[in-house]
Amino acid sequence: MDYNKMALELHKKLVGKISVTSKVPVKTKDDLSMAYTPGVAEPCREIHKDPLKVYDYTSKSNLIAVVSDGTAVLGLGDIGAAASIPVMEGKCVLFKEFGNVDAFPICLDTTDTDEIVRIVKMMEPVFGGINLEDIAAPRCFEIEAKLKEIMDIPVFHDDQHGTAIVTTAAIINALKLAEKKIEDVTAVISGSGAAGNSIAKLLLSLGIKDIFMCDRTGIISKNRTNLDKYKKELSEITNKAGIDGSLVDAMNGADIFIGVSAPGAVSKKMIESMAEKAIVLPMANPTPEIMPDLAKEGGAFIIGTGRSDFPNQVNNVLAFPGVFRGALDVRSSEINEPMKLAAALALADSVGENLDVDFILPKAFDEGYMEKVAEAVKKAAIDSGVARI
Amino acid sequence: MDYNKMALELHKKLVGKISVTSKVPVKTKDDLSMAYTPGVAEPCREIHKDPLKVYDYTSKSNLIAVVSDGTAVLGLGDIGAAASIPVMEGKCVLFKEFGNVDAFPICLDTTDTDEIVRIVKMMEPVFGGINLEDIAAPRCFEIEAKLKEIMDIPVFHDDQHGTAIVTTAAIINALKLAEKKIEDVTAVISGSGAAGNSIAKLLLSLGIKDIFMCDRTGIISKNRTNLDKYKKELSEITNKAGIDGSLVDAMNGADIFIGVSAPGAVSKKMIESMAEKAIVLPMANPTPEIMPDLAKEGGAFIIGTGRSDFPNQVNNVLAFPGVFRGALDVRSSEINEPMKLAAALALADSVGENLDVDFILPKAFDEGYMEKVAEAVKKAAIDSGVARI
Repeated sequence: MDYNKMALELHKKLVGKISVTSKVPVKTKDDLSMAYTPGVAEPCREIHKDPLKVYDYTSKSNLIAVVSDGTAVLGLGDIGAAASIPVMEGKCVLFKEFGNVDAFPICLDTTDTDEIVRIVKMMEPVFGGINLEDIAAPRCFEIEAKLKEIMDIPVFHDDQHGTAIVTTAAIINALKLAEKKIEDVTAVISGSGAAGNSIAKLLLSLGIKDIFMCDRTGIISKNRTNLDKYKKELSEITNKAGIDGSLVDAMNGADIFIGVSAPGAVSKKMIESMAEKAIVLPMANPTPEIMPDLAKEGGAFIIGTGRSDFPNQVNNVLAFPGVFRGALDVRSSEINEPMKLAAALALADSVGENLDVDFILPKAFDEGYMEKVAEAVKKAAIDSGVARI
Repeated sequence: MDYNKMALELHKKLVGKISVTSKVPVKTKDDLSMAYTPGVAEPCREIHKDPLKVYDYTSKSNLIAVVSDGTAVLGLGDIGAAASIPVMEGKCVLFKEFGNVDAFPICLDTTDTDEIVRIVKMMEPVFGGINLEDIAAPRCFEIEAKLKEIMDIPVFHDDQHGTAIVTTAAIINALKLAEKKIEDVTAVISGSGAAGNSIAKLLLSLGIKDIFMCDRTGIISKNRTNLDKYKKELSEITNKAGIDGSLVDAMNGADIFIGVSAPGAVSKKMIESMAEKAIVLPMANPTPEIMPDLAKEGGAFIIGTGRSDFPNQVNNVLAFPGVFRGALDVRSSEINEPMKLAAALALADSVGENLDVDFILPKAFDEGYMEKVAEAVKKAAIDSGVARI
C-alpha cells in the first residue's frame, strides 16, 4: 500500500488528527451555571486552598503534553516545529487509543534549551506529565535533566526511555530462550545518542555484566579524549573491560547486539563473530543495521527490528501508553528507574507462554500488555515513594 | 439551586471538563501506518515545503489556546494559574459547545509580561488563534498589543473585546427601541479596565457622539495628571467636551450608562439625572452597579446586566464562539476592529422581530445567532484583507 499517499489524503480529510472535546453537557442554563459561572468558582477556590486538589477537579489528572521542537523527527531530522505537528498529533492519538491518556501536542518554535525548559515549566499547572519527543541529542538530555529537577510531574523522553524499556523487555525474553543469565552476558550498543544512552542504563539496572557502547569513532572508553559529557558519563559505567577498538572488535564474542545507529553498520561476518545464541536487535529505521535474513545467515539466534514487516518489532507503543497510564493513575511525581525497569519486566512477562524466537514481544494490538505495564509502573511508583494518591 | 455544591460534585465526578480525542481510528496495523509511522512523514514533508499547509494537515485550523495567568479570574481575582484551570476548561467547553471550536487551556505559572508574550509566541505553530482570558489590567493590554504585533494568528482578549462586542450589540438594539441615532448620543462608562477600554473603542468605531470614561477618581480627561498610558490614550479619544468631574456629573444628561466597575456605584438619583429613554447596562458581576428594579424606578428605559436571572443578559458567550468560528474558517491572521464591529452588528441583527425592551439580545441557547456572527466575521475578514483562504 502507498501509505504516503493514503496518509496525506487522510490528514487532509480529517484536517488534523486530534480534537478537544467537552466531558460535560451544556444544553441548559443550569449546565452553564455548573460548567462555568457561577458554579465553577467553587473548584477554583478549593484548588486555591489546596494545590494538590488540581488533580481532583481538572483534566490534569489524565493529561500530558507531547513536547517537541521538531529537531529530530522520525526519519526526517530537523524539520522545525510546524512540520513536526503531524507526528506529535499522531503520538497523541497513540497515547489515547492505547493508554486512554489525554495527550496534547506542544510544538515549540525555539531550539534554545533554557527557553524550552522554562516554557514547559511554566505550563506545568495544566499537565499531569510531560513526554519529550524528537528533540535532538545532546539537547534532549539537558532539557530532560533540568525539567526533572524543577518539575513535580513526570518528565519522560520517549525516544530514550520508551525505546529502552521495550528493548530491555525484548532482551529479557530473548535471554530466557537462549538460556543465558543477564549477569553473564555482554551487549554491544551501536549508537550512543538518546536511545543508546537510556538502553545502556536500563540494562545496567537489570544487572548486565558489561556493555560496549560504540559511536562513529568506535568503542567508548575512558581512554578516549573526544567525549562529550554524556559519553564521558557512559565511559564510566560501561566497558569495564577497558577495551579500545571498533564496532567490529566490540561485537567479537558479544552475546547481544543493539543497533540504534544507521543502516548497514553491521555485516554478516560481524554477526558470525558473536557468541553462541546471539541476540541481534538492529533497530535503525526504516532500514536496520543489518537485514534480518543476513543476520540469520550469520547465525543470529534471535532477531528483532523496528519494523512491523519482520517478527519481533521493537515498538515504543508497547511501553509509553502503559507507562504514563500507570504514572497518572497514582499522580506520580516522576518516572524513575525502578518504574522503567518494572515496565520492562511486565512487558516481557506479558508474552507468557507464547514466548518463541519469533515472538519475544507482544504485538501492538495484542490485548492485556498495556494494563500489565501500567499496573507494574503504578506499583513501582508506590514502592519507590513517588506516588501521591 | 446550590450551584457551588453541584459544580464541585460535577467537577470531581468528571475529573476535569475536557478531553483530547482522536479523530482517526487506530484499530489495525494499516491505521497505525497512516496515523503514525511511516505515513505521517508525508504531511510533515508537505508542511516543511509550504508552511501554510499546516492548516491543511493539522488540527491548527480549528484549534485555539485559552491563555491565562490566573491573575484576574471572574469574581475571584488573582488566584494563580492552577486554581484558574476550572474556569479556563469551562471556557474551552463553551468554545466547543457553542462554536465547535477546539480550545485548549494554557494556564501559565508566570505573571511576567515579556515571558507570557514569548511563551505564547513560541507555541504559535500548533494554534490557529489565541484567546487571552482573565489577565489583570494593564498587563493584559501590553500582552495583547505585543502578541498582535508578532503573531500571524488572531489574538483576542475576550474580557475586552467579547464584552465590547456584546455590549455594542445591546446598545445598537436599545437605540433602535429608543429611536435615537448613535451619532446623537453620549455614553458613560464606569470602569476603565479591560472591558471599558474596548467598549469605548468599539462605540467610537460605530460613530458615537461622545463617551465619558470614569475610574475611581472620576471622569477621565486631558486635564488629569494621574493617568497611565492606557487612560491617557482614552483621554484623547473620549470626553471631547473636556468635562472634569465625578461619575455623578458624567451621568447627568447621558443617554447610555455602561457599568464594568463595582456593585453599588450607581444610585437611583443618578439614573433620574440621565436623558430620556436612558439605556442602563450595569454589568458588574455578580452584583450590578445598580439593581434592575431600582434602575427602573429611576426611569431607565432599557436595562441589561451580566446576570441570567434578569432580562437582557450581556453575556460574552454570545460573541466569542462565533467570532473565532468565523476567524478560523478563513484562516484569518487577526481579529481586527471591522471584524468586531461586524460581529456586534450581526449579533444585534440576529434578534430580528423579537426585538423588545426586555429582549435586546439573543439568549445563550437561542439558535442561529452564532452562525450569523461567524458569517459576518468571515466576510469582514475577507473584506479587510486578513483572510488567508
